[in-house]
Amino acid sequence: MDRCVVTFLPDGKKVVVEKGATVLSAAVSAHIHLNSGCGGDGVCGRCKVVIRKGTVNAQPSGRLSAQERKDSVHLACQTLVQSDIEVEVPAESRLDLGALSQEELALRLRGVYSKAEEILEAKPALGDGLFGHVPLVSKVYLELSAPDFNDKLSDLERVVRGLQERFPDASFVTGLANVRRLGALLRSSGWKVTVGVSRKGPFFEVVSVEPGDTQARNFGMAFDIGTTTITGQLVDLNAKKILGSKAAYNRQATFGSDVISRIIYAQAQDGLEKLHHAVVDTMNEMIEALAEESQVDLNDIGCLSVAGNTTMIHLLFRVDPTSIRQAPYVPVLNFAPVVKASEVGIKISPRGLLFCAPGVSSYVGGDITAGVLACDIQRSDDLCLLIDIGTNGEIALGNAQWIISCAASAGPAFEGSGMSAGMRAARGAIQSATVVPQTFDVRTQTIGGDKPRGICGSGYIDLLNGLLEAGILDKNGRFNTSVKSRRLRQGLACWEFLVVAAEESATGEDIVLTEADVDNLKRAKAAIYSGISILVRHMGLTFEAVRKIFIAGGFGTSLNIDSAVKIGLIPDLPRDKYVFVGNSSLAGARQILLSGPAAQAADRVAENITYFELSTDAGYMDEYMAALFFPHTDAGKFPSVAYGKK
Amino acid sequence: MDRCVVTFLPDGKKVVVEKGATVLSAAVSAHIHLNSGCGGDGVCGRCKVVIRKGTVNAQPSGRLSAQERKDSVHLACQTLVQSDIEVEVPAESRLDLGALSQEELALRLRGVYSKAEEILEAKPALGDGLFGHVPLVSKVYLELSAPDFNDKLSDLERVVRGLQERFPDASFVTGLANVRRLGALLRSSGWKVTVGVSRKGPFFEVVSVEPGDTQARNFGMAFDIGTTTITGQLVDLNAKKILGSKAAYNRQATFGSDVISRIIYAQAQDGLEKLHHAVVDTMNEMIEALAEESQVDLNDIGCLSVAGNTTMIHLLFRVDPTSIRQAPYVPVLNFAPVVKASEVGIKISPRGLLFCAPGVSSYVGGDITAGVLACDIQRSDDLCLLIDIGTNGEIALGNAQWIISCAASAGPAFEGSGMSAGMRAARGAIQSATVVPQTFDVRTQTIGGDKPRGICGSGYIDLLNGLLEAGILDKNGRFNTSVKSRRLRQGLACWEFLVVAAEESATGEDIVLTEADVDNLKRAKAAIYSGISILVRHMGLTFEAVRKIFIAGGFGTSLNIDSAVKIGLIPDLPRDKYVFVGNSSLAGARQILLSGPAAQAADRVAENITYFELSTDAGYMDEYMAALFFPHTDAGKFPSVAYGKK
Repeated sequence: MDRCVVTFLPDGKKVVVEKGATVLSAAVSAHIHLNSGCGGDGVCGRCKVVIRKGTVNAQPSGRLSAQERKDSVHLACQTLVQSDIEVEVPAESRLDLGALSQEELALRLRGVYSKAEEILEAKPALGDGLFGHVPLVSKVYLELSAPDFNDKLSDLERVVRGLQERFPDASFVTGLANVRRLGALLRSSGWKVTVGVSRKGPFFEVVSVEPGDTQARNFGMAFDIGTTTITGQLVDLNAKKILGSKAAYNRQATFGSDVISRIIYAQAQDGLEKLHHAVVDTMNEMIEALAEESQVDLNDIGCLSVAGNTTMIHLLFRVDPTSIRQAPYVPVLNFAPVVKASEVGIKISPRGLLFCAPGVSSYVGGDITAGVLACDIQRSDDLCLLIDIGTNGEIALGNAQWIISCAASAGPAFEGSGMSAGMRAARGAIQSATVVPQTFDVRTQTIGGDKPRGICGSGYIDLLNGLLEAGILDKNGRFNTSVKSRRLRQGLACWEFLVVAAEESATGEDIVLTEADVDNLKRAKAAIYSGISILVRHMGLTFEAVRKIFIAGGFGTSLNIDSAVKIGLIPDLPRDKYVFVGNSSLAGARQILLSGPAAQAADRVAENITYFELSTDAGYMDEYMAALFFPHTDAGKFPSVAYGKK
Repeated sequence: MDRCVVTFLPDGKKVVVEKGATVLSAAVSAHIHLNSGCGGDGVCGRCKVVIRKGTVNAQPSGRLSAQERKDSVHLACQTLVQSDIEVEVPAESRLDLGALSQEELALRLRGVYSKAEEILEAKPALGDGLFGHVPLVSKVYLELSAPDFNDKLSDLERVVRGLQERFPDASFVTGLANVRRLGALLRSSGWKVTVGVSRKGPFFEVVSVEPGDTQARNFGMAFDIGTTTITGQLVDLNAKKILGSKAAYNRQATFGSDVISRIIYAQAQDGLEKLHHAVVDTMNEMIEALAEESQVDLNDIGCLSVAGNTTMIHLLFRVDPTSIRQAPYVPVLNFAPVVKASEVGIKISPRGLLFCAPGVSSYVGGDITAGVLACDIQRSDDLCLLIDIGTNGEIALGNAQWIISCAASAGPAFEGSGMSAGMRAARGAIQSATVVPQTFDVRTQTIGGDKPRGICGSGYIDLLNGLLEAGILDKNGRFNTSVKSRRLRQGLACWEFLVVAAEESATGEDIVLTEADVDNLKRAKAAIYSGISILVRHMGLTFEAVRKIFIAGGFGTSLNIDSAVKIGLIPDLPRDKYVFVGNSSLAGARQILLSGPAAQAADRVAENITYFELSTDAGYMDEYMAALFFPHTDAGKFPSVAYGKK
């Protein structure tokens, strides 16, 4: 096989690839992270590069304009290397960490954060209360007596004796790294040390030993690892305070947009390894950035609480996920062992621990366990519904007596991935929109109030509703081309609606909604709505029996519930039954981080959730097909919606 | 600083050292292990090398003959590199692993092995019997049901469910390596696997998961890590059978002959690191060799049980031992945490565990805990004395009610180290000797019956007694130069007695006992005898109150108790009170390996032993000085001895 050298500019990074490899795969080898919302399918048009030298073989693409083609712009995923080449990577094609500002976060996370605080502070009796409300790692300051000829206990036993005065009857374990530092540390500190102690299980684990009183410096990270988006928070474990939050696209997206394509990729040569490093690298960069911003030393981060779907947890642990997609769809693990974060390559305190919210099954993971916990469904007398809108749309139904859950394969459209102008809920994302009836002008509101860069999930929901109400979009999701508007036009590949013109956008490019985008959104909303329908029906209930509905997901900082109902994403019920809780998976992970009893409650929740397999349900496909309309083929199910009735 | 290249022949290994470094330190850097019984003091004369090219600066040495000096032979420890040089290392200067044959071992270890077997089989109620008598790691074969749509438990939970059917109410933990292999392993094995389980503590640890029924392959290693000698055994944990044993000099001896000089060396640049690697390398080579000889796969060795003095355990764990020699002499750890053997660099099963017998204090370590356990003193109604003759001579006195212990700094003479013809108890070592009264001829018996290569501890004891009885040696340890014998002669540095002439020895060199050797032995025996005296007196007892005396140590495969009494090493008591038990530390380590309850009993023993500090006892120095005679300055203490009375 011929080898070709690919040089990336402006970095100058070089990699050798086999002739015929895609430029995208060469970029991955060079550790250059390109935008690739669609996972290399040539759909999203985000991985634009300029071929400066050499020969390539490129698939034609509707995502490139005539001018771009003239300028040697190519889609990296559709371009095969034929000789030594030089590739320029424009800044906008790079996948970078998009940080949310503090203000944005406060706004975005208002719903679920206040919910979580409420659980933490108003209901302290969660779990068995064995140790009261305590973070997964707490710090204990010890003023030990120095050894003398009458008290010759060894250093390690002296520390344990000090701890046992605080925690009688507890057994302690620790590891080599701490023992190796212990002698010098105790003596140089005058026998005054602070011990980081993890108290999950019958053994207490000594995570760290530090000189002096460092009790004030006790931090942890909460993470939601989504298929498309990873969100992390740095938390002050003493003050129960969020110091900073960041969201980033999961770099695994380069290898496929949904869990199935990731599992397939994991079976390729080094595939599992690459997927593992992609998620760990993303997490490490977020941790480092958050720690730096809050001036927190990485060594003072003693634990990590992670919630994610089952495949994401397998990949984080570098465990082969193959069995997840083979009948009978059994994962290697639902309850992950507590390991040192360093064992999976995450850089916090050397003996810092990694806790994972336990999962239920291959397709209902720890993210749902965490979400149920955050919404307190497991202690609710009322019948509750949790709808987590992500790449997998997970739905949980139940109360304190029982909980059942299923997963609907929605795709990443609501996370802005695979969409022509999609982006996640970060600065500059259009998060709400109104279409003016006669002029078809669009009034948009962006996160942070900046010039628009793209559209996030909540923006798409508003936009769909606005276009449907304005009659520009029909029930099938087709543009009404008889409407006369400069905004409605034939695009490169299909009809599209101009949301924001180039001169008003932050990128200097038009922000559009294409018919292909509408189709993506329609399939996503149909998958979720039909999942809800089947689950409720399976339990012999009606929507009306549900008293409280939590809408979760990272697709916006707020959600117009009315729009979501009207496009047929969620059932047509009184709007006050709905609460938008934002990222409930992250909230649950943070609760676990801050409370041992919450961690124990999460174990109970995961054990008690019954998994319901949608795909084998006889009625699911019919329900899905019927939901592939706005709002639904059966208008009677959406009495409050009047599209086309004006 | 000038740099010089040192080339070692015949290997051709090259290292760069600073001008002025010793050839011995250059050899250490080159990973060439030279004999160095005296730790680089120029005393033992074992590190002979030939300087083939270049300039050195050598201290004059009485250990070199005129011919050797003519032939450019030098002591590596006394020779400073002055330019680029070439050094030839003769085979006899290399420190190699000396294996004991099965027959030799059966002979050597008769005493203590039968003792240990007796403890294991005749008294099964040792410890709290929580799990009965079980090895530290046992193997459990599971025939799991394959998952189906009615039983979708994850792989890991499925294994745990299988284990819980055998061990109800137990909690299980495991690590990443096992989890990562689990999915493929369960499926390829048809859900029939063997799980290695360690059952110490409230958590059961899953050490290994293997396809099929491998219950028959369950092995462990027991180690005694002495300052001078390391002894290891490969044990079939199912059959409680010793498959092979090896002893080797501890390579740390290159850095000093006793624990104090090791601790000092540990404070030098990279010193701790080098000492750590020296012991780990020695152990790994022994494990590999034993495994190969018995055709055991290293992956089937699931645990290691180690007994050693406190400094040796610190160095094995790479923990700074500095505080051991600083008042108030407190170690970093007495109870070492259970860690993965791989964490300290020992190569057995990747998740195989390392257990250490717990120590009592800086100078009474896990070797004594293990020895007390092996001799069953902690359950004895009779008052017992355990005398462990090693580089540190440890002494324990007590019974089921109380145990007190002290350590006497004896030096490595009885282990053959630092002696002109000394060797450890390996093939070819003179282990017993008789001196014919009139002719002064010596009748020797070697281990394995080979031609003599040198003299081990038990041989020296016999030889001293024979020479004292024959009147060749006087009470002060001086040769009676008025005796006319070709065997008594002026040696290179002092008077010496020819034990075996060159033509009868295996090495082709004379085997001699020098006056300096006698002095070494005298100081060693005085340290031990005075320690015993002080300890017994401290308890307000007399020797007569002691009912049973265990003599332990690796200095021979048998011991002539009568000789040992007569030279004044041990008290003059009826000989039937004495039992020679060989390496009791190793026996105790093996007991722990084979029995969880024994491991728990060892913890109790270590907690209950009172440490007595000899060096601060007002009478110790007087006792020591009085014991620097054969048998003692006070002949009344040794009524059965008649040296010089004929």
